[in-house]
Amino acid sequence: MSHPTPTGQSTADGFVSADLYTQIQQFYARQMGLLDDGRPDDWADTFTTDAVFAEASRLNEPLRGREAIRASSRARQERLDAEKIDFRHWLGMLDVRPQDDGSVRTRAYALAMRTPRGGRLEIFASVVCRDHLVRVDGSWKVRQRDLTHDGSGLD
Amino acid sequence: MSHPTPTGQSTADGFVSADLYTQIQQFYARQMGLLDDGRPDDWADTFTTDAVFAEASRLNEPLRGREAIRASSRARQERLDAEKIDFRHWLGMLDVRPQDDGSVRTRAYALAMRTPRGGRLEIFASVVCRDHLVRVDGSWKVRQRDLTHDGSGLD
Amino acid sequence: MSHPTPTGQSTADGFVSADLYTQIQQFYARQMGLLDDGRPDDWADTFTTDAVFAEASRLNEPLRGREAIRASSRARQERLDAEKIDFRHWLGMLDVRPQDDGSVRTRAYALAMRTPRGGRLEIFASVVCRDHLVRVDGSWKVRQRDLTHDGSGLD
Repeated sequence: MSHPTPTGQSTADGFVSADLYTQIQQFYARQMGLLDDGRPDDWADTFTTDAVFAEASRLNEPLRGREAIRASSRARQERLDAEKIDFRHWLGMLDVRPQDDGSVRTRAYALAMRTPRGGRLEIFASVVCRDHLVRVDGSWKVRQRDLTHDGSGLD
Repeated sequence: MSHPTPTGQSTADGFVSADLYTQIQQFYARQMGLLDDGRPDDWADTFTTDAVFAEASRLNEPLRGREAIRASSRARQERLDAEKIDFRHWLGMLDVRPQDDGSVRTRAYALAMRTPRGGRLEIFASVVCRDHLVRVDGSWKVRQRDLTHDGSGLD
Repeated sequence: MSHPTPTGQSTADGFVSADLYTQIQQFYARQMGLLDDGRPDDWADTFTTDAVFAEASRLNEPLRGREAIRASSRARQERLDAEKIDFRHWLGMLDVRPQDDGSVRTRAYALAMRTPRGGRLEIFASVVCRDHLVRVDGSWKVRQRDLTHDGSGLD
């Protein structure tokens, strides 16, 4: 049986504060917005200089360092521009786990979708995004990103 | 290198408060819910009397004023009822920018989807929704909405 | 005409607090994550012992009690494992309505999607999820869940 208690109180669930949770939500809305707006340089700047970007099912080796991420992102944007494709990254179902050192580890679901000029929307991939976020001079940055595509047979 | 600081503190990112962010999330869940529940009149009442509704890729001219929005919304609902279509508007990836006058400007991604009676789900459009929200008698209302469909070649 | 007031203040909209809203968001991210991670037992434990799970368009009779939910969830997971399917439940567009007894009633949109090993993503159902959530020993649990599939002709 359940014993309801007043709403709005702290729970035994280990959830993070509203302040932290909505910060991370806003971080992702803006970060993915930069990528989708065709601003690969600004997007790359949301990673730490020593960031590692791993996409298990696509890349042979992780991208190591912000400048490698920047170069990859610029090349990707040039392809999208040439093909006149609008791209969207949706993140949702966010879970945030604070770490002892003040950083956070997150997990979110992501949908990757694209619409060619004058064409139809295609939602083509469901991905699980696991990040390690740290603060640099007061701003959240991604130090590590691990993407796992559904259907890849990986966890 | 990163210098993590304790979580839950204010950041240099310019994010809005948890209180404001979750208010706007709730506003959109309810506003889109009214439309999807087939309540075009209640939905129209979430706009200011002088609201402007612009959908660049679809309408020749923006709808000007709540009553024009209401009439358009009622006509749309009659078509959906006749065709027995369940329609859903998903908003996500919300960004909120407070303005000096107490209003907010928002940007969100939206997915438009429909399911005919006994038929299959079709997610047919990815749209960027940019709103100007103001408070009227303590309630958030849309004063301006600008929708841009992916694939339209517009920004 | 609108009369904007400073942001961040309480409104006449009847929205719940940021604390409660983000708790429920986190609850769903973790609850659906358990199901999608292939942990049907842990998922079943997020329901009260006397929970009722109703899926109007699919089940002849609601599942009654946590152990019935557990048995159904285990059987489902065995099918997914056999078919090597990655499954995702996305919830969004959350609305939360506090009740006088400290429980909450929620409504959310849900998308059900699957990706077979080496295959393509299919988002196959849009569902409205209405829950009654209660606290048990400080943790949110589902006491009642009512799912309505779009296209079923039900409300």
